[in-house]
Order: sequence, then C-alpha cells, then structure tokens
Amino acid sequence: MKHILLASVCASVLAGVPVVAQQAGPALPPLTIEKQGSFFIGGHDVWSAALSLVDNYPPSGTVTSGQMYVHFQVPVQASRYSLVLVHGCCLTGKTWETTPDGRMGWDDYFVHKGYPTYVVDQPSRGRSAGEMAAVNGVKQGQRSADQLPTVTEASHEGAWTIFRFGPEYPKTFAGVQFPIESVGEFWKQMVPDWNQSLPTPNPTVAALSELARRLERTVLISHSQSGRFPFFAAEANPAGISGIISIEPGGCPSATGDMKPYLGIPALVVFGDYIDQSPRWTPRLKDCRDFVAAAKRAGASVELLVLPEEGIHGNTHMLMQDRNNLEIADRLLTWIGRAVEKR
Amino acid sequence: MKHILLASVCASVLAGVPVVAQQAGPALPPLTIEKQGSFFIGGHDVWSAALSLVDNYPPSGTVTSGQMYVHFQVPVQASRYSLVLVHGCCLTGKTWETTPDGRMGWDDYFVHKGYPTYVVDQPSRGRSAGEMAAVNGVKQGQRSADQLPTVTEASHEGAWTIFRFGPEYPKTFAGVQFPIESVGEFWKQMVPDWNQSLPTPNPTVAALSELARRLERTVLISHSQSGRFPFFAAEANPAGISGIISIEPGGCPSATGDMKPYLGIPALVVFGDYIDQSPRWTPRLKDCRDFVAAAKRAGASVELLVLPEEGIHGNTHMLMQDRNNLEIADRLLTWIGRAVEKR
Repeated sequence: MKHILLASVCASVLAGVPVVAQQAGPALPPLTIEKQGSFFIGGHDVWSAALSLVDNYPPSGTVTSGQMYVHFQVPVQASRYSLVLVHGCCLTGKTWETTPDGRMGWDDYFVHKGYPTYVVDQPSRGRSAGEMAAVNGVKQGQRSADQLPTVTEASHEGAWTIFRFGPEYPKTFAGVQFPIESVGEFWKQMVPDWNQSLPTPNPTVAALSELARRLERTVLISHSQSGRFPFFAAEANPAGISGIISIEPGGCPSATGDMKPYLGIPALVVFGDYIDQSPRWTPRLKDCRDFVAAAKRAGASVELLVLPEEGIHGNTHMLMQDRNNLEIADRLLTWIGRAVEKR
Repeated sequence: MKHILLASVCASVLAGVPVVAQQAGPALPPLTIEKQGSFFIGGHDVWSAALSLVDNYPPSGTVTSGQMYVHFQVPVQASRYSLVLVHGCCLTGKTWETTPDGRMGWDDYFVHKGYPTYVVDQPSRGRSAGEMAAVNGVKQGQRSADQLPTVTEASHEGAWTIFRFGPEYPKTFAGVQFPIESVGEFWKQMVPDWNQSLPTPNPTVAALSELARRLERTVLISHSQSGRFPFFAAEANPAGISGIISIEPGGCPSATGDMKPYLGIPALVVFGDYIDQSPRWTPRLKDCRDFVAAAKRAGASVELLVLPEEGIHGNTHMLMQDRNNLEIADRLLTWIGRAVEKR
C-alpha cells in the first residue's frame, strides 16, 4: 500500500500537478493488455507546389491528408463490444486520457473494465494531418490571402464559459466538479482546430463509419463538436454501430427528421449541470429533449441522461475530466450493459 | 494458439494492411501495466486577437502553446531506467507505435521489456499545440503575409529519397527492410511541421531537459531532426539524463566543440544502410564519425553503431519501422544494459 501511495505521489509530481489535488481514485489492479497499437482510417493524396520553403525538403509533390489516427488497447478477456472515443472542438484524443489533475481518464478506465478501447484524433487535428501548403503559397505571394485555411482556437476566457467552468471568466459555479486548480493543464490540451476548412460532411463521419464496420460491434462515444457524428455515421451505414453515446453534443439530429436510421441502434445523450445558467447550452439541451422524444415516439431506443436530474451535480462540459468522472463512466457502462449488451 | 493467430489476423484487418504482409513477430506474453497516462511539459500563455473567425468562439483572448505532449506506460516490475522517444521532422510520436504493416512498434516493445516508456509529440506538432492566430490575421487583412508561420510538409517523392527507401522515387534499394508494400500507411503518419517558425533553441530541448529531471534516470532516444536535442539538453543541464541514443541524427554536435557536457553521459549514435548511396546522409555520417572520435579522445563514452558494419543490412532512415525493427531494439537494449545500467 505504501508502494502504491508513493507511486501515486510520484505520478503527481510527473504530471506537474500538486499532490494535494490528487484524489485517491479507485483501487484497480494492474492492467493486462492483450494487444495495443495504432493505425489510420481513410486519407487521400493531394499534389501541392508549396510544401516547403526550406532547401532540405522539395517544394512540390504529393502528401496524404484527411486520415484519422486511431490508438487502441485490447485487454485480456475482453468484452465482445468495443468503445470508440471521439473528442470535440479544439481538442484531441488527449481529452479522454489522464485528467488535468492527474487522475485516471476514461480511456484507461474502460480498458480496465474489459472493453477494447479506440481513441481517435479527428482529421486535421493532433496526429491526423491537415493540408497546409496554402500557408506557404500565400506567404510566397503565389496565392491570395482568402485561400488560407480558417483556424479556430478556443481562448481561456471564452472556453471558460463555453465549457461551463463558471458563469464568466474566471468565476466558478458553486460546487463545480472540474479540477479548477489544474485548469492550466487543461489549456495545454487545446489545439488549433481547422474544422472550418474541411469539407461537408466532416471526414470524421466517414472515418467513424469505416472504423465501426471494421470493429463489427462498437459503441461510438462522441463529445461536443463531434456529438452528432455517430448519428450521421449511422445514417450513412449502421453496420458495426452497436450503440451511440453522445456527450454534451453541440446539437442533436433534428426532431422532425427521419428516425429510421436510429431504430436499430440504442443511443444515450448525456448532459451535465448548470445548463439553465448557460445561454449557449439551454437551447441545445432543449433541442436534444425534442429529438429524444421524437425518436422514442418513432420507436427508437434513445435516452436522455441529464445528470443533475439523477442527483449528480456539478458537472461541466468536460465531464470526462470532472472529479466524479469515473462515477459517470460507470453510469455509461451500466447503460451499455443494459441497452446494448443485453439487447 | 489458434486464438492468438486469429487475433493477429483480426489486428491486420483492423490496421488496414494485408494479412500476408504481417510478420509473425516475437511471441510475447500479454503486457501488464502498473500505470499509464499522459501529461504536458512546458507551455506559455499568449494573447491573440484573431483566434476565431466564427461566431461560436470569440476572436480575442489567451491561448497556451509551446507545451510538449508526453504519453507514458510503466510496466509492473519496471526497470529503474526509463526511455524517452522523440520523433523527427514531419512526424509525431506515432513514429514509434505500430509499424505501417501492422507489426509491434518500439513503444510497445520497450514496455514489454520492462522499461517505463515516454513518447512525446514535439511542440507545434501532433497533440502539442502551435500558435496559429496569424493565419486568421492574414486572412482578415489585419496582418501581412510575411507574418504567416512557415510550414514544411514532406512529399512522398522527396521523403522517399530522404528516408532512403530507394535511390529515387519510386525505386527501392536492393534488400531494403522497410515494408514498402505498406508505404501508403507510412505517408499517413506525416504531419505539417511548423519547426521553421519556432524560436531557437527549439522548445523541445528545454522540455526534454525538464522531463529528464522529473524522471531522474532516463535515456533520451531521438530521431533525425531531433537527433541533436538530447545533446543540447545535456549541455543545458545533465540532471536526469542517464544516456543518449541518437537514431540517424540530422547532425551530430561539432567535433571541435566542448566535450565536457558529454563526459558523464554514455551516448550511442546509430545509422542504417545505404548511406554511401545518399548524398544527403554521407556527410552527416562523416560528421558524426568525427564527433564520436573527438568525444572519445576527450574521454566521453560515446559510440557509433553503423548497422551494416555489424552485418545488419537493409535498414532505412525509419529503422524503428523496418522489418528487423525489434532486432535493432534489442541491440539498443543491450547497449543500455552495458553502457548505462552497469556503469
């Protein structure tokens, strides 16, 4: 036990977070991995003339972009069902890993719980390359400035409210579960987001669809900007999609749309706390309520989980990093067990 | 056994590579992990006025950039020494993971061999954010085009020769060990590289130095563009750096420079095959030979390993992905055991 405590302290030091900020966390045994690794889905070749401005690398040639990076772990004695974790705006797969205050992330926890777990970086973010030759082209005067890609970076001040850490920067909501003392570590997770420059539908949708077909029985778990993507993937092709969990989606499918694509796929839409104090999120939750009601009327197995309505309070938009993140993970696994695995 | 074979076949299918391309690989038992996760090193806050061009996110505010993403795994009964893997130009930490043809990468193998293993994304690449607001600023006409960051993308045609897959695209060298049939999967690993826009010294150097201090006893393993960085880190502060392995460095420290920083740190410089057929690499190997000779004369424990001189043939610049990648990994571990652990 002393060894485990010491390891925990060392991990805190390594993670650059105050030891006092660490919660004890669950007593989980060491994790035994059958197989782990990474691969890409999709991608296409593009020829460009402004790939490089340095002598070391030639300026013209072919590059590959649009592919989606996927990292996976399969535990021994794994479940038949796998989980795919898809991050939201301005973030990468890091979303699901160690929390800003050094606690266990969902990626690790789900593998501990026996699920083969796949964590992606959406195309044009993180380890999934975007195509940036236009930047050199404009810099050299060969292309006009309006041909530049568009980038979105979430500021600390703006994200604070959007992610519902508090009503306005830097005030916090009473009882907030996000580890605010480590928010500086959270800001480091944010990356420039080139989504506005990507084609419609976002290439993540087709990549998730292909990944699900390969995995055969998977639950697609999305967050925020990727919230609707599993539904779009199911519309394109339901093969391999055993369930959908949409965490605080930026929007739900339309309540007046065609519900047929969802009839065979159990889905759960999850929201945290303080929604009624957020002009951004209030209408989104309402739209999702309308969608879930319409889907149910059409015979779909779609549920809405609003955490404070279940007595779980203080959760932010980053609920997979909140202090009670593993309690929420357990809720999701209970739903998967009931709605997906026992179907 | 049938189960393992089936798992291997499924993994090939998942990785999108032909099953026939898979080598059997070593018979390794399942991996037991004591702890795994990720964190960031470094980073600084910057205020910008062109963070966003969409209504959803405010245009001005503070973002954090310059941090280095670090993913780690610590096996049970781990070695006292950890390993840090640092990728090269136009790549990310994916370099060290599953090979393009679906075989085990060094990250996984080193953990199997008992070493806590840390894989980084250099600042401004992969999961380590760069600062891109200038792109929006130029697009909006608020800044001039010369203020754009510079990006380098390695083309298939150029990288083919640079990475020594063959003398010219798409010819291969006789006996080449790179899994050429899966080169399309390798191209997907390449990302836009913003290094030319970063300050000097590259922020990776300070981040590696801080990481080594935290880890206390670590071997920094660099590749290509990051080749000299462990030496620079040792010059800044040798604390925590137990050894250096530089895989095909873009250059070695100067043979006429001060060798004192290296006297206490065993180092190994590694090159693959076909160097004499590459006008790019011939002078680099010569410079490294000169450096190693000078360091030895000064009393440093620095060695040069040129694989074909040891009877190992066919290795490219991406030798951590070549068909004999684990044989080379074993060579490195033997060196670590002799030069670092038994010191």
